[in-house]
Amino acid sequence: MARVSQAHLDARRRQILDAAALCFARNGFHATSMQDVLKEADLSAGAVYRYFSGKEELIAAIVSEVLGEVRAAFEAAAEQSPPPAPDALVASVLSRTLAARAGLVLDGVPAFPRLVVQVWSEIPRNEKLAAVLGEGFASVRAAWARIAESYQADGRMRADVAPDRVARTMIACVLGFIAQQSLFGPAPVDVLRDGLRALMSMPEDGSVPGAATPAGRSQRG
Amino acid sequence: MARVSQAHLDARRRQILDAAALCFARNGFHATSMQDVLKEADLSAGAVYRYFSGKEELIAAIVSEVLGEVRAAFEAAAEQSPPPAPDALVASVLSRTLAARAGLVLDGVPAFPRLVVQVWSEIPRNEKLAAVLGEGFASVRAAWARIAESYQADGRMRADVAPDRVARTMIACVLGFIAQQSLFGPAPVDVLRDGLRALMSMPEDGSVPGAATPAGRSQRG
Repeated sequence: MARVSQAHLDARRRQILDAAALCFARNGFHATSMQDVLKEADLSAGAVYRYFSGKEELIAAIVSEVLGEVRAAFEAAAEQSPPPAPDALVASVLSRTLAARAGLVLDGVPAFPRLVVQVWSEIPRNEKLAAVLGEGFASVRAAWARIAESYQADGRMRADVAPDRVARTMIACVLGFIAQQSLFGPAPVDVLRDGLRALMSMPEDGSVPGAATPAGRSQRG
Repeated sequence: MARVSQAHLDARRRQILDAAALCFARNGFHATSMQDVLKEADLSAGAVYRYFSGKEELIAAIVSEVLGEVRAAFEAAAEQSPPPAPDALVASVLSRTLAARAGLVLDGVPAFPRLVVQVWSEIPRNEKLAAVLGEGFASVRAAWARIAESYQADGRMRADVAPDRVARTMIACVLGFIAQQSLFGPAPVDVLRDGLRALMSMPEDGSVPGAATPAGRSQRG
């Protein structure tokens, strides 16, 4: 028997996962059959089933892989001391995650945001997938809370808000921006970075500066 | 023939829409049949088809209604001059929207976030729904951009970021928080409000205060 290199096995696995991701992004999990995946990957059933037993395993593998990339992006960001400000951090984690799936294109635009929303819609019906995603969320939430703690310890952020609430809010920004891309088309990550930067420039107490200082905070620092 | 009051017609319409919303939140749009909706509403086919021709009309009516509520919540917020700060504004719009659907309960928790994600997952396959949602997004985005402009005009927010980017970022926060609730269960709106408040307390330039002023911005104002 011919020896098959690890590189070949890896490339084949990649080919199958990308084909499945495209099918799921296009039609959703339910409306996709293994036949659709075989056709998209241009492989035989034997070649595909050697790697994955079915749709469930495919979607779980795709989600685990994306979560792994998000985690790596966080670890890279956390290596910096002090950590970058939230606008830069969100932009860097999101850019890395989107870049890792930039090759996945559907109707001429990146398919990753659509894939993400299809995965979300599957969660209430799929306990295994819910567990994988729940674990990933907990891990990202903890990582981001540690960064918020470090902002607070450095006096860069007010200290009377639980770091977990900051973490959930930053994650909400990222998830919601991905949802927007899925629903309304691609948008540069700079949109979110700049929007956060502007929000970060607001007064803490929400008060309006007096008429005597109309330019207010914008001239600070 | 017995006269049927408008109140009765409205209540019946409400009953059908709520039943459909529950079915869509539970199983998604594709896996829901009109038979499921009839059963959930405990009504005959004749009673239901008098109001809605099918699933497409039901989902479009549900989405239009929710968008109308979001618009009303915005208009209420925009009546205040100056407008509330982003943390308060996001909390108020989100609270109002969630409260309007608080009666929709599935597995003991609010079903609205799950319904929202199911609607999102349907968008790439449903042009009519995509048009309704796209119009709603454009309108909310414009409303929120006007509020951002007013922050900038009042000197409450740095003026070098396009108001539309602020609008998209605030909308991302809300959408992402709804996604979190759908995926990982209910959470109080205060989480997002406080998280935004903490982000708003960060330095504009992202710089770290010098060692001489460790408490930095947190002692300001």
